[in-house]
Amino acid sequence: MSSVIGQPNRQILLAERPSGKLEERHFRTVEGTIGEPGPGEVLCRTILLSVDPANRAWMQGRTYRGQLNEGEVMAGFTLCEVMSAKDAAIPTGSIVACEAGWQEYAVLPAAQVRPIKVRGELTHHMSVLGVTGLTAYFGLLRIGQPKKRETVVVSAAAGATGSVVGQLARIQGARVVGVTGSYDKNRMLERDLGFDGTVNHRSDTLRDDLRAQCPDGIDVYFDNVGGRVLEAVLPLMRTHGRIVCCGAVSQYDTGNPAPGPAGIPGQLVVKRLRMEGFLVSDFLREWLDAEEQLAAWVASGDLKVLEDVVEGLDSAPAALIGLLAGDNVGKRIVRVAPDP
Amino acid sequence: MSSVIGQPNRQILLAERPSGKLEERHFRTVEGTIGEPGPGEVLCRTILLSVDPANRAWMQGRTYRGQLNEGEVMAGFTLCEVMSAKDAAIPTGSIVACEAGWQEYAVLPAAQVRPIKVRGELTHHMSVLGVTGLTAYFGLLRIGQPKKRETVVVSAAAGATGSVVGQLARIQGARVVGVTGSYDKNRMLERDLGFDGTVNHRSDTLRDDLRAQCPDGIDVYFDNVGGRVLEAVLPLMRTHGRIVCCGAVSQYDTGNPAPGPAGIPGQLVVKRLRMEGFLVSDFLREWLDAEEQLAAWVASGDLKVLEDVVEGLDSAPAALIGLLAGDNVGKRIVRVAPDP
Repeated sequence: MSSVIGQPNRQILLAERPSGKLEERHFRTVEGTIGEPGPGEVLCRTILLSVDPANRAWMQGRTYRGQLNEGEVMAGFTLCEVMSAKDAAIPTGSIVACEAGWQEYAVLPAAQVRPIKVRGELTHHMSVLGVTGLTAYFGLLRIGQPKKRETVVVSAAAGATGSVVGQLARIQGARVVGVTGSYDKNRMLERDLGFDGTVNHRSDTLRDDLRAQCPDGIDVYFDNVGGRVLEAVLPLMRTHGRIVCCGAVSQYDTGNPAPGPAGIPGQLVVKRLRMEGFLVSDFLREWLDAEEQLAAWVASGDLKVLEDVVEGLDSAPAALIGLLAGDNVGKRIVRVAPDP
Repeated sequence: MSSVIGQPNRQILLAERPSGKLEERHFRTVEGTIGEPGPGEVLCRTILLSVDPANRAWMQGRTYRGQLNEGEVMAGFTLCEVMSAKDAAIPTGSIVACEAGWQEYAVLPAAQVRPIKVRGELTHHMSVLGVTGLTAYFGLLRIGQPKKRETVVVSAAAGATGSVVGQLARIQGARVVGVTGSYDKNRMLERDLGFDGTVNHRSDTLRDDLRAQCPDGIDVYFDNVGGRVLEAVLPLMRTHGRIVCCGAVSQYDTGNPAPGPAGIPGQLVVKRLRMEGFLVSDFLREWLDAEEQLAAWVASGDLKVLEDVVEGLDSAPAALIGLLAGDNVGKRIVRVAPDP
C-alpha cells in the first residue's frame, strides 16, 4: 500500500460559478487528504492536467456531462500514475488517462481509468495522440470528409484541435485556411504547419478576408468557435458543404450567449449544407487505430505537435482563463508532477 | 401549328420587389401575346399553377435559382398541356411539368419540360405525386431517417409538404407531432391524418406544449419554418437527433430576417445533432421509384391527399399572400384552365 495515503492533497475547487467572464477569484485552493482506494478503486497521482475550453462550458450547465457545482474539485482530464490499485486489471505504476480533476491525487473507480501504452513523449498522449488529436481526426475525417483540392477552413486554428485539423486536411490534399485572433499565430501556421492561408477574426473585414483566402468558396468548415466566425463563413459555403460542429468557445465565457448565426436554416436549405456535431467518445471503438495512424504521421514528420506546457497545479486557473482569451498556441497542458 | 399563336396571353408580372410583407400591389396583370415555338421549343398552356412558399424567397435574392427581377413574369411551377412542339420527344397534347410561371401560355425549351404519365387526378401530380410529395419523401426518409417508435415533429404540418411528412412518418411506425398556427388545423391532423399529437406555434407556452407532446424528446424535426419553432425544438432534441432543413417560411415574408436560433452550434455539439438541408432535385434519379411508392400508399388509403385549389390565374397573388400567412390546408394550387 502506498505510503502517501493520509498525506496532504493540494486541490483547486470551483469556489463560485462565474456569471460572466471567468476570473481567478472563482477558484479556491485547499489542502485535502490523500484517500485510500477501496475494492475496485485506484489511487492516481496527477502528472499532466489538460486545459480545455470545455472546462468553462461545464461550469455553465449540463452538457454531455453533469454541471459542476460550487465547492467541488474543478473537473479536468488528466494523465496519472497509478500509486495503489485494488483492481487486478490496473497494476500499480500504470500510466492512465482519467478525469482526476484539479488536484494532486484522486481515488477513482478502476472502470473510469484507461491505461495508456506510452510511446515517445508523455505529453503527446494529451495532445496529438490524446482526446485533442482524436477529436481532430474523427471530426475532420468522419464528419467533414474533405476531398483532394477542396477548401477546408478551421477556426481556433492555432489551438490544440485546430492545429491538428489543419495539418490533417493538408495531408488529405485539401487547401487549408486557418482562422485565429493573432497575426503572429497566423504567420506560424503558414510558416511551420503548411497552412495555405490564414485570416484574423478580429479584422473589420472578416468576411472579405475569408472570401479572398477562399476564392472558390468553402467545402468544409471545422467550427471550434461558433458566433461571428460561423456567421461569416455561412455565405461562403459551397453547395453540399459540411460544417463540423466541434465547439463554440466564443460562447462559453459569458453569462449571456449571443443569438445564433443569421442564415440558419436558410443557408442550409439553399446550399444543401450538412451541419453536424460530434463527440470523440462516439468513436471509442476506433480510437486505437486512429492513434496508430496519428503516431505514424508524427513519426514521419507530416504532423507537427504544438504544445503549450505550463508548470505547476497552481497555474491552472490562469492557464484556463488565458486559454479562453486565446493566448495559447497548441495544446495547453499543466504539468502537475514530473514524469515518473 | 396551333391556332392560338399571336392571340392574347394573360400574364402576372412581379411589378415591384417587396421590402416587407408581400401585397397585391407588388404584382401587375398585363396582356402579352402567345409566342411561336422555335426549333427545340414547345408552346405550353398552363392548366395548374403551384403556389409555394419558395415563390416568396425567389423575390428576395439568389437562392438555388437566380433572383426574380421587377417587370418579369412571376415564376412558378406548372402542369401544362403541350399545344405545339418542335421537338420529337414531346408530342403535342402531352402533359408536362415545367416552370411556365404565372401566365396562360409560355414558350419553353423542350429540355426544360418533363412529361408526366398521368395517373388518377391531375392535381395529385402537383401535390402528393409532385415536387411537394417528393420533397416530403426524400427529406424525411433520406435526411431524417426516422426509426420505429422514434418521435418525429413536423412544422407547417397542415401544409403541402408537412401533411405528407407526418403521414409518411406514421407509415414508418414513428410517433408524429405536428406544429401549425391553428387549432382547427390541429384537430384535422389528429382526426383525419393520424397525427399522434399537435401543438399551436402561436401558444405562449410553445416550448412546454412541445415538451408535453414529446415526453421522450424529439428524434427527427422536419423544419419547414425556421425561426421561433426551430429555437423551441432545439433543447428537446435527443442525442444523435436529425433536423431536416426544408424551408424557412417564417423568414421569407420580411425584409429583415431574424437572427438565427440560439443554441446553434452549442446544442449541435452537446447532443451530436445533424442538421441538413436538401433540395428534391438532388434525388432526381430516384423520382420515378418514389412516385410509384407514394401512388401505392395513396391507392391503399394510407396516405391521404390534402389539396386547396383556387380558381383562376387572377387569384394567384391573393393565394400566395394567404399561403405565407398560413391560411392554406394542404397543397395550394391555382387552376388556370380546365383539365384537357
